[in-house]
Amino acid sequence: MDKKRNIIVGQSGGPTAVINSSLAGVYKNAKERGFHKVYGMLHGVQGLLDEQYVDLSTQIHSDMDIELLKRTPSAFLGSCRYKLPEIHEQPELYEKIFEILDRLEIETFIYIGGNDSMDTIKKLSDYAIVKGHSQKFLGVPKTIDNDLALTDHTPGFGSAAKYIAASTKEVIRDMLGLAYKKEMITIIEIMGRNAGWLTGATALAKTEDCDGPDLIYLPEITFDMDKFLAKTKELLQQKSSIVIAVSEGIKLADGRYVCELSGGADYVDAFGHKQLQGTASYLASYLGAEIGCKTRGVEFSTMQRSASHMASRVDVDEAFMVGGAAVKAADEGDSGKMIVIDRVADDPYMSAAGIYDVHRIANNEKMVPREWVNEEGNYVTDKFISYVEPLIQGDYQPFMVKGLPQHLVLRKD
Amino acid sequence: MDKKRNIIVGQSGGPTAVINSSLAGVYKNAKERGFHKVYGMLHGVQGLLDEQYVDLSTQIHSDMDIELLKRTPSAFLGSCRYKLPEIHEQPELYEKIFEILDRLEIETFIYIGGNDSMDTIKKLSDYAIVKGHSQKFLGVPKTIDNDLALTDHTPGFGSAAKYIAASTKEVIRDMLGLAYKKEMITIIEIMGRNAGWLTGATALAKTEDCDGPDLIYLPEITFDMDKFLAKTKELLQQKSSIVIAVSEGIKLADGRYVCELSGGADYVDAFGHKQLQGTASYLASYLGAEIGCKTRGVEFSTMQRSASHMASRVDVDEAFMVGGAAVKAADEGDSGKMIVIDRVADDPYMSAAGIYDVHRIANNEKMVPREWVNEEGNYVTDKFISYVEPLIQGDYQPFMVKGLPQHLVLRKD
Repeated sequence: MDKKRNIIVGQSGGPTAVINSSLAGVYKNAKERGFHKVYGMLHGVQGLLDEQYVDLSTQIHSDMDIELLKRTPSAFLGSCRYKLPEIHEQPELYEKIFEILDRLEIETFIYIGGNDSMDTIKKLSDYAIVKGHSQKFLGVPKTIDNDLALTDHTPGFGSAAKYIAASTKEVIRDMLGLAYKKEMITIIEIMGRNAGWLTGATALAKTEDCDGPDLIYLPEITFDMDKFLAKTKELLQQKSSIVIAVSEGIKLADGRYVCELSGGADYVDAFGHKQLQGTASYLASYLGAEIGCKTRGVEFSTMQRSASHMASRVDVDEAFMVGGAAVKAADEGDSGKMIVIDRVADDPYMSAAGIYDVHRIANNEKMVPREWVNEEGNYVTDKFISYVEPLIQGDYQPFMVKGLPQHLVLRKD
Repeated sequence: MDKKRNIIVGQSGGPTAVINSSLAGVYKNAKERGFHKVYGMLHGVQGLLDEQYVDLSTQIHSDMDIELLKRTPSAFLGSCRYKLPEIHEQPELYEKIFEILDRLEIETFIYIGGNDSMDTIKKLSDYAIVKGHSQKFLGVPKTIDNDLALTDHTPGFGSAAKYIAASTKEVIRDMLGLAYKKEMITIIEIMGRNAGWLTGATALAKTEDCDGPDLIYLPEITFDMDKFLAKTKELLQQKSSIVIAVSEGIKLADGRYVCELSGGADYVDAFGHKQLQGTASYLASYLGAEIGCKTRGVEFSTMQRSASHMASRVDVDEAFMVGGAAVKAADEGDSGKMIVIDRVADDPYMSAAGIYDVHRIANNEKMVPREWVNEEGNYVTDKFISYVEPLIQGDYQPFMVKGLPQHLVLRKD
């Protein structure tokens, strides 16, 4: 009897609206390619180490379930923010992982995640090669931040950008409806610690029925409080309602985050990243005090990464595609690779899955190029907009049950 | 030649997702009833006093425009937070308004708004009666807060409730995807200064695929910090991820708002209302410090009142209905009245427009009944849920252009 061809898939890092579409792509493609079992690790490698996994066929029973999974935000299997130690630091941990993989007769290990997850794929595939294990390790990109190198863009980014642009339009309309004979400033805070892709996406709100934000500040450009105040005052000479989009990660020349100025808590996560929040409310208070006008800080908060109800069809479909492409690559013998998205054409937009060695990818953050930001450093250029616009097109209507979007959730029996 | 039958309509107070559906209802019904011109005051009575108005036929050219208007959030005509003085305090201001209405040959004056707007209708209709003016004054209810008396509910509430419930589901899913072997508390802050209708609507997130929030704190119930902490700790014994919904308006026994504890700014608006913000982030910091676990504050902010992309079909249709019913009432001779929504039946849900004397309505705030909140004061009862659930049903798909919801905006030529 042939050795069982089993596959295991995990999800890691921050939630997105489409990380489950990639999971659906892995599941469907694996079934079509004749894999025997498709396991899902619960809460990524961290859960796997605790032997937490499910047979996905106990969860996904129909094509309808697959469609529902594509419309479910956040990690269906649960995620983790767990960083594998270097191999020499804790070899017993690697031994344990491979013992579990051997026991489950795993042929292919697929990990859906961002930079930190690709680091996991790199370490596990390196270990397998060194120790002569036969499993294949493939990475599937995922992050709303769009900061992965080599891929044109990341699944999750387009849907977050679409939610952000749509909500920015609504916030602007909200403010304009209220503003009469008084100055109003709204500051919108967007996720993106180091890369300003999502903050720049607020520029998409500039459409025939909306002027879009007036100023956009990305984390790639050093934030200057005095220039910011002067620019805001200058704009108030021309118009009475101003909307400013800022990244949560904007920093002063001395390296401090703007949100640190408010004296908020300094939470540090498992990867040593500072928790950033409060930039908009700090700047709103600051401008309110300096200018004496009405101000409001708005955070799109976790909604921007989990709003499946406003997902982009391009994004959902590409997330599904890269999940399937990872299975195909493994099936054809690849390992230690990450699937990427190549932009085949701009107009009409076309994309295809490509593949790269994961050693070339891990831990390189892709920033917004300086030339895609204007000279003053307070708006994105047309090139930026042309790049993002195709990624927010189309929609997947949520399955509405009792007036609300329905999700597929893990059944633990 | 007959006297011209003209009508003027204005919008006042805070934005909602469906205030423009009422405007569309006024316009369409007025045209069908043979009114000559339909004027729109820009920024309500405040703009009217500056002679700011438009002929709506220059803005609405087709049935398509009407459909687009129904899908456009915030006041299309611009709103105001302007309170008319008592008649004896500033009679010249009333003279000016009626001079403008006479000049425009206005037969009917319709004002779409909340408590403060119904106060305007009352004063203007009182003045007209005392001075022998023939214009009719009708109020159309509008507020996300659902705090108007005599009407079963207010247009705008259902859509805000739907957005809040849908986003609460997504925020909960987001947190559950991340939570593994660590405690996490998410505090969601909802609008509603004195009335907890919207905060209670988070309970609708409890569905077959979601447990909903764990605790719900309405502004009607005095907030006790010690009990809150004790209850949270008790829940953490049973589960590691907790979601708590709080109203922005929760107050301590000594009358202070919880958000005041953070030492934030005390902005007071034209109606003397304090600007409330920061309750969630204050409570998140507080629990983080007391319990030592990861916490996050999430504000749905202005998105909850302007998210037309997640509007309830029941709400949009009812908003349209009450707009049309105001025109009909005036056409049949009513004045000094507000249109209300009567709930005709629960299952299946049916509603119809009713009418009340505006003197019975103005400045009475409708609170969540104490018996619709559980004994502990930290969740709503099934009666509350049965009341709200029909109001979030159905949707109006946004008209998507270039990947984003399109809005009808005022053309100023």
